[in-house]
Amino acid sequence: MAEREVDVLIIGAGPAGFMCANALAQAGIKVKVVDQRPSTVMAGQADGIQPRTIEVFQSYGLAERLLREGNKMILATFYNPGENGIELTERVPDVTAPTARYPYEVTLHQGAIENIFLDSMKAAGVDVSRPMIPTALELDPDKIGDPTAHAVKVVLKHLDPLEGEPPTEVVRAKFVVGADGAHSWVRKSLDIAMEGAQTKYIWGVVDMVPRTNFPDIRTKCVVHSESGSCMIIPREGDVVRLYIQLEGRDAIDATSGRVDKNRFGPHQLLEVARKAFRPYTFDTPDEFHWWTIYIIGQRVASKFSVDERVFIAGDACHTHSPKAGQGMNASMNDTHNLAWKLIYALRGWSGLSLLKTYEFERRKYAQDLINFDVEWAHMFSGKPRTELNQGGVAHADFLRAFQTFGGFTSGIGIHYAESPIVRYANQACAAHVVVGQRMPPQILVCVADYRAVELQDLLPSNTHFKLFVFTGCAPLDALGEAVEGLVVRFGRAVDLFTVLPSELRGLTFMDVPLALRPHWSKVLRDQKDTRGAQGGDAYATFGIDTQAGAIICVRPDGYVGMVAPLDQADSVAAYFSSFMNMD
Amino acid sequence: MAEREVDVLIIGAGPAGFMCANALAQAGIKVKVVDQRPSTVMAGQADGIQPRTIEVFQSYGLAERLLREGNKMILATFYNPGENGIELTERVPDVTAPTARYPYEVTLHQGAIENIFLDSMKAAGVDVSRPMIPTALELDPDKIGDPTAHAVKVVLKHLDPLEGEPPTEVVRAKFVVGADGAHSWVRKSLDIAMEGAQTKYIWGVVDMVPRTNFPDIRTKCVVHSESGSCMIIPREGDVVRLYIQLEGRDAIDATSGRVDKNRFGPHQLLEVARKAFRPYTFDTPDEFHWWTIYIIGQRVASKFSVDERVFIAGDACHTHSPKAGQGMNASMNDTHNLAWKLIYALRGWSGLSLLKTYEFERRKYAQDLINFDVEWAHMFSGKPRTELNQGGVAHADFLRAFQTFGGFTSGIGIHYAESPIVRYANQACAAHVVVGQRMPPQILVCVADYRAVELQDLLPSNTHFKLFVFTGCAPLDALGEAVEGLVVRFGRAVDLFTVLPSELRGLTFMDVPLALRPHWSKVLRDQKDTRGAQGGDAYATFGIDTQAGAIICVRPDGYVGMVAPLDQADSVAAYFSSFMNMD
Repeated sequence: MAEREVDVLIIGAGPAGFMCANALAQAGIKVKVVDQRPSTVMAGQADGIQPRTIEVFQSYGLAERLLREGNKMILATFYNPGENGIELTERVPDVTAPTARYPYEVTLHQGAIENIFLDSMKAAGVDVSRPMIPTALELDPDKIGDPTAHAVKVVLKHLDPLEGEPPTEVVRAKFVVGADGAHSWVRKSLDIAMEGAQTKYIWGVVDMVPRTNFPDIRTKCVVHSESGSCMIIPREGDVVRLYIQLEGRDAIDATSGRVDKNRFGPHQLLEVARKAFRPYTFDTPDEFHWWTIYIIGQRVASKFSVDERVFIAGDACHTHSPKAGQGMNASMNDTHNLAWKLIYALRGWSGLSLLKTYEFERRKYAQDLINFDVEWAHMFSGKPRTELNQGGVAHADFLRAFQTFGGFTSGIGIHYAESPIVRYANQACAAHVVVGQRMPPQILVCVADYRAVELQDLLPSNTHFKLFVFTGCAPLDALGEAVEGLVVRFGRAVDLFTVLPSELRGLTFMDVPLALRPHWSKVLRDQKDTRGAQGGDAYATFGIDTQAGAIICVRPDGYVGMVAPLDQADSVAAYFSSFMNMD
Repeated sequence: MAEREVDVLIIGAGPAGFMCANALAQAGIKVKVVDQRPSTVMAGQADGIQPRTIEVFQSYGLAERLLREGNKMILATFYNPGENGIELTERVPDVTAPTARYPYEVTLHQGAIENIFLDSMKAAGVDVSRPMIPTALELDPDKIGDPTAHAVKVVLKHLDPLEGEPPTEVVRAKFVVGADGAHSWVRKSLDIAMEGAQTKYIWGVVDMVPRTNFPDIRTKCVVHSESGSCMIIPREGDVVRLYIQLEGRDAIDATSGRVDKNRFGPHQLLEVARKAFRPYTFDTPDEFHWWTIYIIGQRVASKFSVDERVFIAGDACHTHSPKAGQGMNASMNDTHNLAWKLIYALRGWSGLSLLKTYEFERRKYAQDLINFDVEWAHMFSGKPRTELNQGGVAHADFLRAFQTFGGFTSGIGIHYAESPIVRYANQACAAHVVVGQRMPPQILVCVADYRAVELQDLLPSNTHFKLFVFTGCAPLDALGEAVEGLVVRFGRAVDLFTVLPSELRGLTFMDVPLALRPHWSKVLRDQKDTRGAQGGDAYATFGIDTQAGAIICVRPDGYVGMVAPLDQADSVAAYFSSFMNMD
């Protein structure tokens, strides 16, 4: 039986598996990815990328292609019962999070998104082995404590072996990531329970190029009608996805209690939609690209890891309704959170305990997601309030929920709790840069060449922490001396940037001491660009005093780990020391 | 001897040849490209891409990569003699053209730019045959009048033939483009004279990663010192190009009157620069990437074409100083102008006479360029005005020239004269959209999905004219009927867009008659985007009355061909009919 060693074995090449594999591949980690399907998804499945996830794509250099291939969903529209069927109630921006760098969702079918990752991974020398499934997984208790040991043994089976290829192989991995979907084999083999329940809500989905006179067909449109709810998600090209609420009695097999896909096809789903959309018409399209029916489940895995050696991520650890477009985003952000921590453990930069923060941060998020989903699915699937149904969902309440939850659904508002890598202390010195949230976008100007620089573009997912020294009007030489030790000690894992206030307009980059300018491109100033169009408000926006300054420390995944006053460079060292071994 | 037929043979794979080859390849034209060099340029040569040229790259889908790989040159700085050597006089934006979509120059070495084209061409199935030179060119006088005939015979010689490959081949082409540089074989074989003269100005060039304490090393910096002039061009990565003015007696061989490269090397050039840059220092770099010495010549070819079957383009038809960064831009825009006209002739959409507008438009531009260059080279190479030299060039005059010429050097101000494809009549109905200039950028909002759309992104170089119907408040049904005939007759070559004024805020795209909306994405409105950040000023910016409306017709190369009042759809038909055969 063939046997090989890898650093990380990833089981499942969906959004969670791909995000993980690509991040590890870009960092030069020896990774193997297996998937049971013979190819990437051809149609259907997930399709919505939230504003924060676009920022994450950008941090891996993948946003350009995503934006080129995908559709931008700018507008949300709401229809409710009127005189003659449904009527437009309101059009509002789809994304309400004020700091979103990309104020829209991108919609693109999951296969195209997977291909973006696949091409990026291939450029780094990593491909997916498929179709292939795991058949046994074993943790060696003697090796669990040694991060350099290949502590996990997994037996893999080729479903379609090439001639002469052994049908099974054994992989010994330092870490295993189970990103193998809602029916996760990894989760089951680890005996991890899913906690939560199934709802009573049943929905159908159809992907097609619609033939309709509905004027908001290219918006995210929520329809509450007397004949049930529908939602439109416009997609790449002319494709549109319709979500259609179904009555249980129509779709459920009474004996088994499960969805019976034999009772419904896309034609039947479209027929239900037609009733909801009256007086607008939907002619039968030339073809249906994809369709499905599902019951909303709302569950979270009881744990996300075993001994910090085997992890589960994505649908393997949380299921919820797709209506707020969270599924693929939650999944990818799980492994975006996990990947740099695996790399730190593999490089010996951190101990295994850093990996505990994965479950700590992402399980809480998954629970918040389910709590949100309970409310949201209720409002979504509920009957609209009308004269005859005063107990129904009022549009004003629905809109308020839509906008209140906007920070959460956009991913912008995700807030990690305190831990070794998130220190809330000193928050006041950069009051509006919320520790535990992602670093917001901000235009700065490069002192050497006056280029307008988007701060988020200084945060590539390159496994490094980014230290922004907002100098205020502090004496630069003394400041340079104070941070020099930090850079010497943690420089392998930390990139330093200096941000001068507009008060220091007269300085050139040559006036900044060498300790504060590792490269000419890393000295920035808070000023407007040469057209006066952007920038000049970083200190104010971040709540940093232009005299006192502050240090902002951003994690490798783009989340703010800590902030500190300039005279507490020591606290930054203490922060790094608490989880990094670099003495 | 091998013999083959092609539609277009391009001789020379430099910027002019590549722009032409890529445009033809993207349009599916059968094209052959030969070049005498064994590979793309590895270092040196041209390196500046002007704002208008970036817009042209964008129209071919190539700007993303250009911007990713290149350096953005934002700032121009000026140094003049002071107490102790040179002193900073002023820092100003490098690009002053107010409508420039990209308010900077991109600097990147020529080889990288050539590779952008090469990869794009290869994706369309076209590569460069090299090293290969033409040895004979013959026009068949009996075939010259027939656009479908392969009227030009060229004998090509492989300089490094593969084993078994015949050393020469004969190509019969419908058209030949000579983009073979300042010493153009094609030009000489056609007996076309270069008109103009050589100047007295001699300059050296060095590419290197500098070791300096000069604070404006990442800006376009013009130094007028007591010891001659210098210019800095910052480039990709940390590379910088230095232009260094030389004294004739140091660099010229008295006997031959030519530049003697034996007398100078990069070390000597840097030594001259050091004197000009005092008190700042330039240590000797680890290596010099490239260097050269040249005398500025200012010449234009007496004609750009023979019988509209053989054309010359780029350095083959104009030479001038590189100081305003025009060379590569003029060259690429020559063939950007030529390519769509060749395609129209090849497709039978136009007669050969359309091709006369190439020389008409580009030779006048080349002459303007030389006239500009005479003034500019004088100011650039002249001694600075000081107390002792009151006849020298004053900074204020230099800056005024820099900013006045900015429209021209950026490429934004290029203005083609009247011809069958440029009709100045009716200018008043869209007063600020200058007929004969490139269509300026403008944010519009897509009515169906509220996406902010950059109008220039609706102008891909896809060989089609673009007709923008600014409806004003005219009755839409009547307007639809008026343009329907146009679309039916010229639709193969013309794309139509509708732009509603903000007054028609209540309309959805379904309210626009079908003749005015070939696709949901083509109905736009003059309104702000959902964040209120951009757009909403198109009618005002273009000088179009929001009641009366107007039609703007943009050529396939992005230049405004004509404008018309809404009640003169006939004049648009007359315009197309004057050079298009589509009855």
